[in-house]
Amino acid sequence: MPNIVVIGSLAYDSIYTPSGAAERALGGSSNYFSLAASLYTKVRVVGVVGEDYLATDLELLTHRGVDVSGVQKLPGKTFHWAGKYEGDLNEAQTLVTELNVFETFSPKLPEKYRDSEYVFLANIDPDLQMSVLEQVKKPRVIACDTMNFWISSKLNSLKKVIEKVDVLLINEGEAKILTGAPNAIAAAPLLNKMGPKAVVIKRGEYGFALYHDSHFFILPAFPISKVIDPTGAGDTFAGGFMSYLAQHSGDLSRESLRNACIRGSMLASFTVQDFSIRALLKLSAADVEKRQAEYRKVISL
Amino acid sequence: MPNIVVIGSLAYDSIYTPSGAAERALGGSSNYFSLAASLYTKVRVVGVVGEDYLATDLELLTHRGVDVSGVQKLPGKTFHWAGKYEGDLNEAQTLVTELNVFETFSPKLPEKYRDSEYVFLANIDPDLQMSVLEQVKKPRVIACDTMNFWISSKLNSLKKVIEKVDVLLINEGEAKILTGAPNAIAAAPLLNKMGPKAVVIKRGEYGFALYHDSHFFILPAFPISKVIDPTGAGDTFAGGFMSYLAQHSGDLSRESLRNACIRGSMLASFTVQDFSIRALLKLSAADVEKRQAEYRKVISL
Repeated sequence: MPNIVVIGSLAYDSIYTPSGAAERALGGSSNYFSLAASLYTKVRVVGVVGEDYLATDLELLTHRGVDVSGVQKLPGKTFHWAGKYEGDLNEAQTLVTELNVFETFSPKLPEKYRDSEYVFLANIDPDLQMSVLEQVKKPRVIACDTMNFWISSKLNSLKKVIEKVDVLLINEGEAKILTGAPNAIAAAPLLNKMGPKAVVIKRGEYGFALYHDSHFFILPAFPISKVIDPTGAGDTFAGGFMSYLAQHSGDLSRESLRNACIRGSMLASFTVQDFSIRALLKLSAADVEKRQAEYRKVISL
Repeated sequence: MPNIVVIGSLAYDSIYTPSGAAERALGGSSNYFSLAASLYTKVRVVGVVGEDYLATDLELLTHRGVDVSGVQKLPGKTFHWAGKYEGDLNEAQTLVTELNVFETFSPKLPEKYRDSEYVFLANIDPDLQMSVLEQVKKPRVIACDTMNFWISSKLNSLKKVIEKVDVLLINEGEAKILTGAPNAIAAAPLLNKMGPKAVVIKRGEYGFALYHDSHFFILPAFPISKVIDPTGAGDTFAGGFMSYLAQHSGDLSRESLRNACIRGSMLASFTVQDFSIRALLKLSAADVEKRQAEYRKVISL
């Protein structure tokens, strides 16, 4: 079975939405990514947690066959993020960011991770993304995500990472900030010129736009009337997306990329239906398949 | 050929967007609607203009075979709207609204209009919408649009109109205001319960969501990298939508409604590519067909 290595955060999040709150709930891009991708393929996690990180929380991953031997435990506390969503839940307002053990973290891949063929660089410091990338011997497909914080604070490092990836997955708002383009359609070709073969712009409740080989592929999100907590939807999308490519030998053809986006989008639609990683914990590949069949009816004549 | 009667505004708009400005350019829902629908079917306009309305502007419609005998010319000035779009152009900021001749307007359908089978009640005072509706003998399909102004000022009248229509076409923002729902997916079933058989929620650059018979049909907009002026996109959508239903004997089946939405969406994608009605004036049914073929590739595997 192919292996995906992911570098990202393992975190405790406090989240406030119109539906309620989740205090110090399990979060972090690597958790969302791994729980999504591990429905389909092997995942290896590189990351860092503090002394407060619960063994049972790591077990949620190992029970899914995820390799966590690349997760370091350092003195101090686990990364903590608190955010609040209002109104249409399209944007989080960050209340607290405590880097904690992330402040001194230097990712080191276990030797056995170095043959991973698929690499996902979740939204973290681009210098750490690059460091992981350099440790993978012969990656077949590399994808990354980023956010406005790195666009404003580490643009040059970020550009070097983007230049090296096959696929850039990025939020619509950040795609506009990074390019200065007024909309996703104008931004995508500019991002494409920065290096990646394919660009996936994530549009929240409006779905996604894939740009590849001068063509757009655009579809809406699966219709969800009650969005509880959008946190982690993007990382879930990435997990579904990468798992599809890994299952298809890294095929970056038009059809493969399009199917990978649909898988990502389907998985993300579950994540937003509950707080934290709860929906992903209950999810099976059969649930995803069923939703995808319903989705086909939503987007077809 | 089937006949659509439309009640709406004929206006001079002053529009400011990041791409430039159009001062006192031809606008108004009836102009956008009629120029779109008349590519496919007969249109009859009910409305009012002032003494300043140019004969050549009415001729733009008559050259397309549109019947303007229901357009009254009253002493005073034509309806004038000025608006400004910024950033992502998703929302206009109204700078000026001068009702002028609309203040005393009471729509009266010419006798020959009264057999119209298709009725579009564009965004105007719901009392005027109702008055037009009452003058049509035996409508086959009725659709309406509205906006926040009427939702806050004439909710009861508006509800009576919505109760009587087959299709409600409404902007996403206004769908949320009218229902109190946090998103389009939650709003659509609530709007459906207000009376219409079908609800079309227009989402600007994100396309549309059709809700009918407990099912959603959701598609993105055709990708346009340079949106010049979004004014009139919704009325253009309605013109395309209604023309499709009129050409198909008012068929409100799932397939027919879905195709009608796609037609509307395609036409609207042209309108936003230039100021005022300019793009519609140059447009042919063949152009629309060509774009629809490109669009199919954007939304298919």
